[in-house]
Amino acid sequence: MSLALSAVNLPEVVAEVEAVFAQYEAALVGNDVAMLDLLFWDHAATLRYGATENLYGYAEIAAFRAQRPAQGLARTLRRRSLTTFGHDFAVANIEFVRDGSTRIGRQSQTWVRLAEGWRVVAAHVSWLDPL
Amino acid sequence: MSLALSAVNLPEVVAEVEAVFAQYEAALVGNDVAMLDLLFWDHAATLRYGATENLYGYAEIAAFRAQRPAQGLARTLRRRSLTTFGHDFAVANIEFVRDGSTRIGRQSQTWVRLAEGWRVVAAHVSWLDPL
Repeated sequence: MSLALSAVNLPEVVAEVEAVFAQYEAALVGNDVAMLDLLFWDHAATLRYGATENLYGYAEIAAFRAQRPAQGLARTLRRRSLTTFGHDFAVANIEFVRDGSTRIGRQSQTWVRLAEGWRVVAAHVSWLDPL
Repeated sequence: MSLALSAVNLPEVVAEVEAVFAQYEAALVGNDVAMLDLLFWDHAATLRYGATENLYGYAEIAAFRAQRPAQGLARTLRRRSLTTFGHDFAVANIEFVRDGSTRIGRQSQTWVRLAEGWRVVAAHVSWLDPL
């Protein structure tokens, strides 16, 4: 068993993941915490490495969201790479710049389609280190 | 269509991903560039965000590996989280500390089983920012 190359980036799957990705991005800059929570997999195995914190499990991620500052969230995407594998799996990666800053941020998400819908099962956000 | 919860962390799949994860880690600290290259998906969509670089496509990643310093690669894993989804998808996340440093690194990998074997399709490595 393995994933066939022909199952990479099926147009209908790409469209679905683009939609949930956009939903997440809008929730992030709009500080819609309920939507951010909804789009992460409600499971102990869910993981989010942030710029300044390592969060293990849905509960830790939700607690972090709840006390997150609501200001300074606007950001501009510099580059986006989205790849889907079969019908239920995808990776979405972006480079972004926060308004008023030149620092380059990177956000990586792994999405899985579960019974409840597409959910982020692992995420990693960081700032590019200057060389 | 969606992934059933019962297909998360199937023991035989976890064992396979643990094996390729260990192979990658050994290649990394041993600077086995051929093996590191082999374990990344040979495709234009493969992506690796490193601490100081954003690499798009297998060719950029391989070029980076080829000129990577061969010293100071030893590291200790602080924590590991590995989750598999169905038979062909997995995420592997670790916290690590380089020998002689206290800085906490994070490495995220998304693995897909393709015809050629398990391959990393996206990776993100960064240092935790001090708060």
